[in-house]
Amino acid sequence: MSDWQDYLTQNKDRFLNELLDFLRIRSISSLSEHATDVQKAAEWTANRMREAGIENVQIMPTDVHSVVYGDWLHAPGKPTVMIYGHYDTQPVDPLNLWTNPPFEPTIRDGRIYARGASDDKGSLLIPILTCEAFLNTEGKLPINVKFFLEGQEEIGSPQVDKIVANHRDLLACDFVLSADSGQFNETQGALLVGLKGICGIDITVKGAKTDLHSGVYGGSIRNPLHVLADIVASMHGGADGKILVDGFYDDVAPLSTAEREQIAAVPYDEGKYQQELGVDELFGETGYTTRERVWARPTLELNGMWGGFQGEGVKTVLPNEANAKITCRLVVNQDPERIIRCLFNHVEKHTPRGVKVTSRKNTFSSLPYLIPADHPGNRTAAAVLTELYGKPPYYIRTGGSVPVCALFLQELGIYTVSFGFGLGDEQYHAPDEFFRISSFERGRIAYGMLFAKLAEPPGA
Amino acid sequence: MSDWQDYLTQNKDRFLNELLDFLRIRSISSLSEHATDVQKAAEWTANRMREAGIENVQIMPTDVHSVVYGDWLHAPGKPTVMIYGHYDTQPVDPLNLWTNPPFEPTIRDGRIYARGASDDKGSLLIPILTCEAFLNTEGKLPINVKFFLEGQEEIGSPQVDKIVANHRDLLACDFVLSADSGQFNETQGALLVGLKGICGIDITVKGAKTDLHSGVYGGSIRNPLHVLADIVASMHGGADGKILVDGFYDDVAPLSTAEREQIAAVPYDEGKYQQELGVDELFGETGYTTRERVWARPTLELNGMWGGFQGEGVKTVLPNEANAKITCRLVVNQDPERIIRCLFNHVEKHTPRGVKVTSRKNTFSSLPYLIPADHPGNRTAAAVLTELYGKPPYYIRTGGSVPVCALFLQELGIYTVSFGFGLGDEQYHAPDEFFRISSFERGRIAYGMLFAKLAEPPGA
Repeated sequence: MSDWQDYLTQNKDRFLNELLDFLRIRSISSLSEHATDVQKAAEWTANRMREAGIENVQIMPTDVHSVVYGDWLHAPGKPTVMIYGHYDTQPVDPLNLWTNPPFEPTIRDGRIYARGASDDKGSLLIPILTCEAFLNTEGKLPINVKFFLEGQEEIGSPQVDKIVANHRDLLACDFVLSADSGQFNETQGALLVGLKGICGIDITVKGAKTDLHSGVYGGSIRNPLHVLADIVASMHGGADGKILVDGFYDDVAPLSTAEREQIAAVPYDEGKYQQELGVDELFGETGYTTRERVWARPTLELNGMWGGFQGEGVKTVLPNEANAKITCRLVVNQDPERIIRCLFNHVEKHTPRGVKVTSRKNTFSSLPYLIPADHPGNRTAAAVLTELYGKPPYYIRTGGSVPVCALFLQELGIYTVSFGFGLGDEQYHAPDEFFRISSFERGRIAYGMLFAKLAEPPGA
Repeated sequence: MSDWQDYLTQNKDRFLNELLDFLRIRSISSLSEHATDVQKAAEWTANRMREAGIENVQIMPTDVHSVVYGDWLHAPGKPTVMIYGHYDTQPVDPLNLWTNPPFEPTIRDGRIYARGASDDKGSLLIPILTCEAFLNTEGKLPINVKFFLEGQEEIGSPQVDKIVANHRDLLACDFVLSADSGQFNETQGALLVGLKGICGIDITVKGAKTDLHSGVYGGSIRNPLHVLADIVASMHGGADGKILVDGFYDDVAPLSTAEREQIAAVPYDEGKYQQELGVDELFGETGYTTRERVWARPTLELNGMWGGFQGEGVKTVLPNEANAKITCRLVVNQDPERIIRCLFNHVEKHTPRGVKVTSRKNTFSSLPYLIPADHPGNRTAAAVLTELYGKPPYYIRTGGSVPVCALFLQELGIYTVSFGFGLGDEQYHAPDEFFRISSFERGRIAYGMLFAKLAEPPGA
């Protein structure tokens, strides 16, 4: 075993405790009351990078949450990779479904349960620790490494484009390694080759000046909840699962035979998937497999909807406001701005007189992203994963969105290679999110192997 | 001026302060955390009745909130009336729309602002104070009076039927006078001749075991919010405002020409109504005037709907649960139980595979109620109102429901005559509910006049 590997083993308890510390920071980026917590997480990250020996660490402010940059660039002639991750987290509600409080990390059965454990604090910490292992044992890294760790991924990275555009030289590199990704399962590696884009709107329907008595006024005016139900119901079809927003599918690139084959090559137990979700039937757009729908077809989902009385018992109210939050996941070549316009038009077209309906674009906007399976970065990562798991990785996609992947490609002309160690069952974005201690440890070895392999001369 | 009227005038400041005390009790009947407050309001009411000289005061427990009974029965040969009212209130949300805290009554411009001020604590207190005025000046009441004051009106009086059925002799009387009603405006009296019935259901749609990431799982399963929107959207039609629940209209008695004329005889400024509500168009079932829809046609209203993320910003969640609360207002001859079955059937018929949908009957259930305009109680009340306002009262209906009216008719064979002093603009069931001090004072005189007139020999 090499020195850096020994170091990782010897310090694993300390690393675990450090992750627990990191997870105690309530860095929910979507809630303004947690803005200082997000900044605290940025500072924690920056300090930890400095402790690891990473240089030029700086916290770059934006109008929302900061980006933490750092580098180690003393391997002339070797490749330069930039590691991407995010220290912000999703919100935690519904809180009552958590076994332990989401920001009081708890270890059970080799798993660390906490909001952000898998997505993405655990994953983000891995390459920092690997760098520390190299620098504290060999005094150097095999390659040049930059870090670009942000705090606004969970709100769609709205200000990251400006940072990237303003720091093209600083961020120049051969490719990005994203720690915000995962493997197939505990015994099978995977490389992510497709991400969906995203955009969305919030809808507010306003009726009378105030809430009203449902008996005294019912039957005389539009009920905003009914109008909202009509609007959102009109956005999707019946049994065929199609989205009925005019223009929504206009720019969707049809799935090629090669793409369908690539997707079909990844094992998939639909029965098990259904059972795990606990539903008696899967559902979606006809003409596509479940995987194709999730990985490569656009979707429209209601993330939230509310209005009127939500308490115990009965309140005979005719409410004067109703709200919905909608996000769409986009595929090549859908443009978020155009889809937003389609949604606005749809809402307007389905707004009756008697209410005022407003649609507002939310802060999420990202182009869909595809990377060739044979990109050089993917080839090296595949070699490492093959060695680590004893078999080649699968080439997978996700319906999720990591806006910076499309952004780095657009702004810097570089691809992002996925190299993260989350697993699909880890309840990210849901109660009882967890990260496996085994993944936390394996990821560190994997990053070390990848650094070493990237340092080898081409064709070696 | 008679003695009892002097007494009312001399004690008006004390009476006002007593009402403010009464309004400080947070007697929200629908919220279990306020159960002791509702009981406190019962005790306050009982004590105040005893102080007034009312006899045999007792608090009759039920499985939910109590009924306060009391009587004064020393006028042999004179009619016996039973006064009805309720000391429970609606909930208070949305709290942020209140000018003063809802249970900290505040007087502004001759109005008492507080939850329950108009509906129904202010109105309920009026006849108690009038009795006190008679008993403390003349030592007796002109007629026999019973009180039946309940604490579960705002949850649909679910246990009052048992109390009534078990106390037929105690509650025997010539007719009921309901203090839970109002006049037309400050210068025009009114007698209520029609109330709607009510029933309703709560719907819960459950999808996957947990909330899920909308990107990773979107497109593969039913979203409970979409299903809920479809279900509730399917319950009502498009431009014609019809309710599309099978069987909903089956038993509706068509409006007779006489009924339509009675409704049309009551002045109604539709433009002003629309302006007060702040909507750019009224809406409802075609073929009926707005008044007919509100007063005499059945309605179905969403009182609340919710699921998923309701916070600030974006949460890309595919929620696993969605809820709706629905109540229907019924007209003669619709039966609440039958309508509930129609709603259950409708929900079941519109439930797709892939989700579990449950419908639960809520605690509200009341038959519709009509009283002949020329009922003897109405005739006497009309005479008093004519004297008081200088012109005859209008015969009005409401889309609201006071379950005991139908209940007293069914169980005791007696009609309920409306004799309350709320006005339609008093924001009951909404933020900034208020009651006019002038109504509080006028109501006491009116009850005194009514007692006196009821004591006159028939035809006098």
